[in-house]
Amino acid sequence: MGLVSEVFNERTKDFEYLTGNVGIGHTRYSTAGSKAMENAGPFLVTTSIGHVAVSHNGEITNADRLRDDLMKQGLTFLTTSDTEVLLMEIAREISIHGITNGMRIAADRLKGAYSITLLVNDRLFAMRDPIGFRPLIIGKFGDNYLAASESCALDVLGADIIRDVKPGELVELTPNGINSIFTIPSKKTAHCMFEYVYFARPDSIIDNIEVFQSRMNLGKTLAKEHPVEADVVVAVPDSGRAHALGYSNASGIPYSEGLIKNRFSARTFIMPTQQTRNSAIKLKLNVIRSEIDGKRVILIDDSIIRGNTMNHIVALLRKYGAKEVHVRVGSPQVVAPCFFGVDMKTKNEFIAAGKTVEEIKDEIGADSLGYVSIGGLIASIGMRKDELCLGCLTGDYPISLPEDKFSRQKELESFTS
Amino acid sequence: MGLVSEVFNERTKDFEYLTGNVGIGHTRYSTAGSKAMENAGPFLVTTSIGHVAVSHNGEITNADRLRDDLMKQGLTFLTTSDTEVLLMEIAREISIHGITNGMRIAADRLKGAYSITLLVNDRLFAMRDPIGFRPLIIGKFGDNYLAASESCALDVLGADIIRDVKPGELVELTPNGINSIFTIPSKKTAHCMFEYVYFARPDSIIDNIEVFQSRMNLGKTLAKEHPVEADVVVAVPDSGRAHALGYSNASGIPYSEGLIKNRFSARTFIMPTQQTRNSAIKLKLNVIRSEIDGKRVILIDDSIIRGNTMNHIVALLRKYGAKEVHVRVGSPQVVAPCFFGVDMKTKNEFIAAGKTVEEIKDEIGADSLGYVSIGGLIASIGMRKDELCLGCLTGDYPISLPEDKFSRQKELESFTS
Amino acid sequence: MGLVSEVFNERTKDFEYLTGNVGIGHTRYSTAGSKAMENAGPFLVTTSIGHVAVSHNGEITNADRLRDDLMKQGLTFLTTSDTEVLLMEIAREISIHGITNGMRIAADRLKGAYSITLLVNDRLFAMRDPIGFRPLIIGKFGDNYLAASESCALDVLGADIIRDVKPGELVELTPNGINSIFTIPSKKTAHCMFEYVYFARPDSIIDNIEVFQSRMNLGKTLAKEHPVEADVVVAVPDSGRAHALGYSNASGIPYSEGLIKNRFSARTFIMPTQQTRNSAIKLKLNVIRSEIDGKRVILIDDSIIRGNTMNHIVALLRKYGAKEVHVRVGSPQVVAPCFFGVDMKTKNEFIAAGKTVEEIKDEIGADSLGYVSIGGLIASIGMRKDELCLGCLTGDYPISLPEDKFSRQKELESFTS
Amino acid sequence: MGLVSEVFNERTKDFEYLTGNVGIGHTRYSTAGSKAMENAGPFLVTTSIGHVAVSHNGEITNADRLRDDLMKQGLTFLTTSDTEVLLMEIAREISIHGITNGMRIAADRLKGAYSITLLVNDRLFAMRDPIGFRPLIIGKFGDNYLAASESCALDVLGADIIRDVKPGELVELTPNGINSIFTIPSKKTAHCMFEYVYFARPDSIIDNIEVFQSRMNLGKTLAKEHPVEADVVVAVPDSGRAHALGYSNASGIPYSEGLIKNRFSARTFIMPTQQTRNSAIKLKLNVIRSEIDGKRVILIDDSIIRGNTMNHIVALLRKYGAKEVHVRVGSPQVVAPCFFGVDMKTKNEFIAAGKTVEEIKDEIGADSLGYVSIGGLIASIGMRKDELCLGCLTGDYPISLPEDKFSRQKELESFTS
Repeated sequence: MGLVSEVFNERTKDFEYLTGNVGIGHTRYSTAGSKAMENAGPFLVTTSIGHVAVSHNGEITNADRLRDDLMKQGLTFLTTSDTEVLLMEIAREISIHGITNGMRIAADRLKGAYSITLLVNDRLFAMRDPIGFRPLIIGKFGDNYLAASESCALDVLGADIIRDVKPGELVELTPNGINSIFTIPSKKTAHCMFEYVYFARPDSIIDNIEVFQSRMNLGKTLAKEHPVEADVVVAVPDSGRAHALGYSNASGIPYSEGLIKNRFSARTFIMPTQQTRNSAIKLKLNVIRSEIDGKRVILIDDSIIRGNTMNHIVALLRKYGAKEVHVRVGSPQVVAPCFFGVDMKTKNEFIAAGKTVEEIKDEIGADSLGYVSIGGLIASIGMRKDELCLGCLTGDYPISLPEDKFSRQKELESFTS
Repeated sequence: MGLVSEVFNERTKDFEYLTGNVGIGHTRYSTAGSKAMENAGPFLVTTSIGHVAVSHNGEITNADRLRDDLMKQGLTFLTTSDTEVLLMEIAREISIHGITNGMRIAADRLKGAYSITLLVNDRLFAMRDPIGFRPLIIGKFGDNYLAASESCALDVLGADIIRDVKPGELVELTPNGINSIFTIPSKKTAHCMFEYVYFARPDSIIDNIEVFQSRMNLGKTLAKEHPVEADVVVAVPDSGRAHALGYSNASGIPYSEGLIKNRFSARTFIMPTQQTRNSAIKLKLNVIRSEIDGKRVILIDDSIIRGNTMNHIVALLRKYGAKEVHVRVGSPQVVAPCFFGVDMKTKNEFIAAGKTVEEIKDEIGADSLGYVSIGGLIASIGMRKDELCLGCLTGDYPISLPEDKFSRQKELESFTS
Repeated sequence: MGLVSEVFNERTKDFEYLTGNVGIGHTRYSTAGSKAMENAGPFLVTTSIGHVAVSHNGEITNADRLRDDLMKQGLTFLTTSDTEVLLMEIAREISIHGITNGMRIAADRLKGAYSITLLVNDRLFAMRDPIGFRPLIIGKFGDNYLAASESCALDVLGADIIRDVKPGELVELTPNGINSIFTIPSKKTAHCMFEYVYFARPDSIIDNIEVFQSRMNLGKTLAKEHPVEADVVVAVPDSGRAHALGYSNASGIPYSEGLIKNRFSARTFIMPTQQTRNSAIKLKLNVIRSEIDGKRVILIDDSIIRGNTMNHIVALLRKYGAKEVHVRVGSPQVVAPCFFGVDMKTKNEFIAAGKTVEEIKDEIGADSLGYVSIGGLIASIGMRKDELCLGCLTGDYPISLPEDKFSRQKELESFTS
Repeated sequence: MGLVSEVFNERTKDFEYLTGNVGIGHTRYSTAGSKAMENAGPFLVTTSIGHVAVSHNGEITNADRLRDDLMKQGLTFLTTSDTEVLLMEIAREISIHGITNGMRIAADRLKGAYSITLLVNDRLFAMRDPIGFRPLIIGKFGDNYLAASESCALDVLGADIIRDVKPGELVELTPNGINSIFTIPSKKTAHCMFEYVYFARPDSIIDNIEVFQSRMNLGKTLAKEHPVEADVVVAVPDSGRAHALGYSNASGIPYSEGLIKNRFSARTFIMPTQQTRNSAIKLKLNVIRSEIDGKRVILIDDSIIRGNTMNHIVALLRKYGAKEVHVRVGSPQVVAPCFFGVDMKTKNEFIAAGKTVEEIKDEIGADSLGYVSIGGLIASIGMRKDELCLGCLTGDYPISLPEDKFSRQKELESFTS
């Protein structure tokens, strides 16, 4: 548990205990309420063919059904994690059928999003689900091959990028190079559009497209689709910066830094009774007065999901003297849950669900509001529509989902509404 | 990991997070080289009938064979622990056959020593293997029933002793009382004699025999079997004290405290270069000069297994002026490995293996040496020979062992000799 | 020791132990080799008039002389810190002469830079040295008055800015308002120019000048003093960003984000043997390919002190395809040590000391190099020359220094050269 | 803070940071309510003659007066500890007058009990107050000299005992031997009788008297002064064991182990609501049934101060079948506070204050009760009356005390009564 720098640090010299020449690791996007140690990856078991370990990025949509099925055969589970189901399914198949056939069978049974690294004793594999929801890329560092979710992790090591793992492909990384074992054919892909909009680091290149460029393009598209007269373009730092530069570029309105992040966490040293007093505290943002005071401001964020801070930011800008605040959003409205690895589960939490743009504008207190269109998004990323997963924008998902996902979904919604 | 008082302490208030009305726990006799977190009990899994957890005292002799068998059916393992095998075997059988039948089947397949507490969802059970190697006792605290390895754990809570779990018995502990579900019949028992000699706390009562009395009796028997003229009877604290009192009692030679334990660990604050200098440091014992100087000393320990400190203690007593040092041991010579839960695995580590008493006497530097005879041991404990496991004294074990136990054994011995 | 969020956190609930209605704290700019607990502020002593505590920003130039003096009178010290000398001097004078007269005497004896908060039992004071080297500002939060080094600390709480503590002023903060006790008159001030260039947060307002505006102005001045034809203006993040925006603004060359910070510390999880391999690791910077490849880049940093990373950044940009790299620096050359609170102590560590701009340009591998002129700096900040401390740029310090400062200085230099 | 083994442990390798060839340390007898870090020794300051550090066993009776006196001269304090006063007094005098004269002056001004080790830069000293309240002994380990409170600390290292520091003596420990600098003459000594009764380890030799022998003698004296017919002599472990052996010896009634300590702390894992239920928990003692049931028991403890557990122990023995319980106490009644280093401060906390033996007997529920007489104590220890401090037994203290000690005393008593 904790940051990588807390788990592996120089004082405890944990690294000296890591020997051997293959390995996998996992840092988890910690979603609310599931910080339990039991969900920390990688997951590891011992089978009749030896040790099997897996790190998983994504979400298995039929995990409940598979777990029930495996438990009926006498298998036991330690956690509620879909990653454990994924591992147990893989471990079972490859211990019976061998790695190649076992992985084909497992891939046939596992539904949903999974980019994984897999260790079978001292052999290292990487695999991506057949429509490639989540990224997975291979690099080379000296004579060593490695795989990571994003290319920026290769850059920081000084490793070279080799190529993306293809959707449906199982690759073995060996000391002598990479070995493509099989690729499950698929007529379409469904790369998550949200990686380009927000999730991935701007310096990453995913499926041959640089994230920063996609965001600059989104900003430019936004400027064309929703122009407005103003004095300055300001980003919500840090994730809105590339979109804001694109908007400034296309519109000719100067970009500036009007908001600055408070790096230290105010939350921790404010007395509980004071916490509710002040919205600035919740924002962890501060204003550069000279860039805002007396100006018409275009405020750009990459996306608005729940919308529970945007009204505070608009109010903060007005407090520091903004004459007008025009909000521009670098992606379309999110209106439907994600079942493929992003923590957005119920319609009720989306500010855009069932509201007009005008209504949202009023809710956040802006002078105007504009979203990138879905067509504009597709064009800005630079893929075809049938190469992207747009499920959260349209409710139209690239794969069919188990009945219970929807029923549980509805139950949650009726409960929360 | 750590002491109970480190894991559950007042500062972190961990107890406030423990809700519910049944539970099991485990503090482990940590054997060298196996301090890994993965071996910390209780072990817990989720099955098709819900949560199953087990705490285990003992050792499963056919664990390797059972693990292979279960893995061939697709089950996976996390550890090398025999307790995990025990749990998986139980979990599998009871999830298929129900608790009563499942536990009968599991008991038929599991070989070796096991006193366990078992949690199946909110039902609590206790079970002991059919010949009762290890103790297991039931108590009552207010309206609550509980089971523990030793009665002293009940005493410290102020709980009343109800009775021992019988060999082969499965008992359910309910809010309304205890419920004996079945008892597997057996013609003999094999209670570990070493519990009475050393392992158990002196104030515990195991299978209706008080440990302190057994030890007093062993000391008395020793005085009869190996009398010697001397001025004072001194124990190796704390485990030899009851035997020494018995010896003093039967011989009329006064008992005194000639050795005192250093409660703080010298090891930690001595510079490495100084550590080898002084045997007193290794002993963590200090001498009461007035009780030793100029005297003929009878030094009593409960047992001698490896014998690697006894020579230092004898030398320490001589250094502080003992005129004679007569060593008396409150148990017979240990010459064979234990496969039922005591960490004594290879013949080569036993000082008594293949040596005469005279040779051992010379090795430890004593003026004389005497062990309790096997007959004397049986009589002192107060059971029949066929009620006790004397395997480590005779090499004659109460149950047959898998071939590989012996072959691995021989391999280890040839390797270390 | 540690971050504020580590010292005061929600888990340990330390805040519940903080009662009372006045307090001071200190987070220290940790300079190399002096991370000892003994130097952690605030410093606290008990005197004949009660508890006296102080937090200190700055550096006492005659600390060694004062310490010797106080020790000759029987006073003792716990640390080598100049803050302890400051506290002991204050504690002594106010316990003998009362707070007002005592502080006047102490201010007469203490030389150098000190902005302090002072607690005498339950009375809270703030004071700034007579020429105001370091900032100190007063705010109001509800009915509470508070003082901080920078206004951004007030903003984050939602507190209002009241005014700067004046150079030489002692102010008491009471529940009923602020009370200016005395102000030592001075013909000049010597505000540290480096606060505006690098040290302070961009959103802070110091002595009525917004830091961000100063940096924008420095960038604009730089564009005028050192124009160059190029395709993109890129900042060394995060500190060079305001200067870069100013440069882009004045030159019309588009600003973009070409470098991105690696927020996680690569250092900790690279094996020691690999650490030296790659300069990118030391930089903790990654390149946005699309913004650099094939372009003529103007790279802007706020300052260059030691220059030991700039050559790596230039090389990194070239590796990712930059056609030209023109380095522009948002401040003049630093050539002399600071004795007033910035950790720059020996001439030998300054890349600019004794070198021409051309030589420095070659050393960092740039196509061209330009610094802001001293005149340009003064104009950009917007003060008069005799209001600023420019000691590190000119070697001409605003107050005279003890002989030994210079001799020790020379010794260090002869030693290191 | 914490045990020595927690502060210096093998994992953190703290010892590798301890270089140099002299040092002092301190483990503190932690009294209730004063566990603050600020009171952890050794205390260290820097003076005009360099570093001065001190570890202190004892209590300075005029600490408040000295502190006020030193503060009036401008000295400041960090803690409420009398050890800081002792250090500041010493530091002041030796920095002005040199070590020898300074220590003579300090010894003249410091009143009360102090056995100290003192470090002045790299010179190591040991000193004992003029009437020698607390022990201090010098040893030799290889070529190194060391001083400790008790000889058992020398034994555990394998060091040889050289001699006690004499009352009033200042000794320097050098690489070439020990050097007695001065000894302040005194007509009497006042060695704390309680060291022999309870405080010191039984294997220690203090002022040439072995503690264990003193305790055996106390037990023998008790048998003569308070004989009773009984079946078994039982000690409150561990501190009453030597007295009990002496009683058994002199009376001929067999000694046995009837009570056993619970080494693990029950307190930590009992739910708060259950804690008050059961007295056995508070005792951390368990009964050996066979040694108590149906027997007339002589229960021996070294002393009874507050008496708040003795009634529970008597009740526990009766619960387990004791026919009679005769309590014998290895020291006289404690009726007056200690001002010289033992945490017994108010008369009201003493069970024996203002009560007859008969009344105390009834309060603890014993069949009979006997204390050693004061004359018997003196004879058992083997010193003359004017060599011992008997203040807590008689209220007649060996040195005069400041008025305020008594008045504060009375105030506390009136408050608590």
